[in-house]
Amino acid sequence: MTDVRLVREQGVTAPGGFRAAGIAAGIKVSGNPDLALVFNEGPDYAAAGVFTSNQVKAAPVQWSRQVLKGGRLRAVILNSGGANACTGPGGFQDTHSTAEAVAAALSEWGTETGAVEVAVCSTGLIGDRLPMDKLLAGVTDVVQAMAGGLVGGDEAARAIMTTDTVPKQVALHHKGDWTVGGMAKGAGMLAPSLATMLVVLTTDAKVDAQALDVALRRATAVTFDRLDIDGSCSTNDTVLLLASGASEITPSQDELDAAVLAVCDDLCAQLQADAEGVTKRVSITVSGAGSDDDALIAARIVARDSLVKTALFGSDPNWGRVLAAVGMVPFTIDPDRITVSFNGSPVFQDGTPMPGARDVDLSGADIHVTVELNLGSGQATVRTTDLSHAYVEENSAYSS
Amino acid sequence: MTDVRLVREQGVTAPGGFRAAGIAAGIKVSGNPDLALVFNEGPDYAAAGVFTSNQVKAAPVQWSRQVLKGGRLRAVILNSGGANACTGPGGFQDTHSTAEAVAAALSEWGTETGAVEVAVCSTGLIGDRLPMDKLLAGVTDVVQAMAGGLVGGDEAARAIMTTDTVPKQVALHHKGDWTVGGMAKGAGMLAPSLATMLVVLTTDAKVDAQALDVALRRATAVTFDRLDIDGSCSTNDTVLLLASGASEITPSQDELDAAVLAVCDDLCAQLQADAEGVTKRVSITVSGAGSDDDALIAARIVARDSLVKTALFGSDPNWGRVLAAVGMVPFTIDPDRITVSFNGSPVFQDGTPMPGARDVDLSGADIHVTVELNLGSGQATVRTTDLSHAYVEENSAYSS
Repeated sequence: MTDVRLVREQGVTAPGGFRAAGIAAGIKVSGNPDLALVFNEGPDYAAAGVFTSNQVKAAPVQWSRQVLKGGRLRAVILNSGGANACTGPGGFQDTHSTAEAVAAALSEWGTETGAVEVAVCSTGLIGDRLPMDKLLAGVTDVVQAMAGGLVGGDEAARAIMTTDTVPKQVALHHKGDWTVGGMAKGAGMLAPSLATMLVVLTTDAKVDAQALDVALRRATAVTFDRLDIDGSCSTNDTVLLLASGASEITPSQDELDAAVLAVCDDLCAQLQADAEGVTKRVSITVSGAGSDDDALIAARIVARDSLVKTALFGSDPNWGRVLAAVGMVPFTIDPDRITVSFNGSPVFQDGTPMPGARDVDLSGADIHVTVELNLGSGQATVRTTDLSHAYVEENSAYSS
Repeated sequence: MTDVRLVREQGVTAPGGFRAAGIAAGIKVSGNPDLALVFNEGPDYAAAGVFTSNQVKAAPVQWSRQVLKGGRLRAVILNSGGANACTGPGGFQDTHSTAEAVAAALSEWGTETGAVEVAVCSTGLIGDRLPMDKLLAGVTDVVQAMAGGLVGGDEAARAIMTTDTVPKQVALHHKGDWTVGGMAKGAGMLAPSLATMLVVLTTDAKVDAQALDVALRRATAVTFDRLDIDGSCSTNDTVLLLASGASEITPSQDELDAAVLAVCDDLCAQLQADAEGVTKRVSITVSGAGSDDDALIAARIVARDSLVKTALFGSDPNWGRVLAAVGMVPFTIDPDRITVSFNGSPVFQDGTPMPGARDVDLSGADIHVTVELNLGSGQATVRTTDLSHAYVEENSAYSS
């Protein structure tokens, strides 16, 4: 891609045809912003989505998967302050009512909208019903805020934050003619993930739902699906991609794929950098596997290993823990042919430690671990973080 | 079993026909005891062993698996202060030399012994060669200490400690006629494990290697294999069972199985209670699965979930994290039929939270999580611990 610009100061409202808003509806006890709306003004309403692979799916995931089957969305309503997961039939009814309320408010404002054109995303503590009085009042307010004419992408990105310390958004401008924008919260991946990851992507490209679906699945498979902070998998993970067609330009599938990939990759890096308790941004690359799938399995096992992650927190080049983790893969490896490197320095090769292996400097914030299996040409990289005191603190000190 | 006594003050030398010793050979920089010997005086020398399932196997594991094929052991030499894993052909030669040295010292003392009758176990940092001058000198010393006539089970149990804070041993006296004893170090399981787990079990029952093998595999499958501290898997895990026949009594397979199981179960509880960073002893029981294997998979997923483990560290009955973990199982479940209980109090049932679910008291040191899937009759329990600051500290502050 030439003449392409990534801008982190912009998000879902960078592409033409989109408005957004974020407000404090009182769902969070803290009083922080907790309700966001992304609205597609058209002229097109094509949409695609990918969702958590967890079998325990939150009510909003069940709802949004259902409505996405039509390949068409007018709006996405997102709340923080409660996941609305494991809340039974009443919880699903709450999600339905929220979509109905958004549709009604948008219709009243002049855009005839049905509830089935409204996706719902929720994030927060699992197991509690949402405060529907506050949420429904908030829906009216957030539609008014959006209708008020402000662009609102920043506010929306802030309203979906939970343990995030910074809002995450980015926009890609393609040769000045069409744009993809996005916002994200959380610090994980689709499956598995740490806490809920919610992502809304928008574009003014003139493309149909099928093209969006292809681009989204290709991009998430190598970005959010390969961000693994702690191996845990949320009940609520959702990534949505909406197209307004406002640019009147139809990129090729390749161009669309590349643009969506670039935006997902950048949001992914932002999620990693703001993961709970992160002090090190770690990438694990496994190469020389029998297939890319095998490489991904191996990289994930290393990325999830608590002993590897605590060693990296301590800036300790304890490469033996990497080998021990690799030894747990469910396919046959030959330990004597493995090469392990830290930040480009080989520490173990041909079955034996390399000189200076204990002295590799891992004091920086970025650590790259590479494992060459010498079995084939399969390769994959997983992004993760270290396991720090702050992670333990953040996840033990209060319910989230 | 009636008239059976478990005594924690005794270990591998409780059964007749066994001597042991533990000394400081200077392998550990700290100067703490680091070399242990368990010696079988006979008249029988039957033995069985189970080893790590990690594909990256330490030299002593490769050696001991090999010699165990004969079903016969005179002695086990165990060192802490170095795992001798990922050390190449030289490391294997070191293990071989150690077994040769033990055989020579025992032969010199008057017990004709071959190196193939000596199992070797090592634990400590992966990737460094052992200080063989100190180790070989230590072999002479430890054989002399054993030959000196002290029973030595306590000393042996202390010499294999690494991050353990207390030695672990137990003996089961069967109706006063035969005995099973054991010692253990580490805080993990066979596969996977935290750090290395080494266990030596002894008995004066008159049983052959086949009976020992059966009893050992049955016992480890439901004890050490179901202790999962952090999902990591050591390169060195070893459990050995040696029989001297000194009691001249041959128990039935059922009696032997029950006795070995009781000793393994007790050592397992001791390992759990002394796991790295433990503040809570946690058991996860999954019932109502399609099979026991499925139940074990589900229990392990919950036991390894960092978000569950940090919540329990905080005494937080955050049952949503348990459900989210269960939702990741690789077989089909019905979330609406699951019941989750904490310490016997149902917190989630029939798809909805139970009243008072947020108020269950988890402030005690023992926490029992039960998950009823209502799919079948499969059941399994996994022992684990919480994920605490101390765990992070212990595993990041220095190489181990």
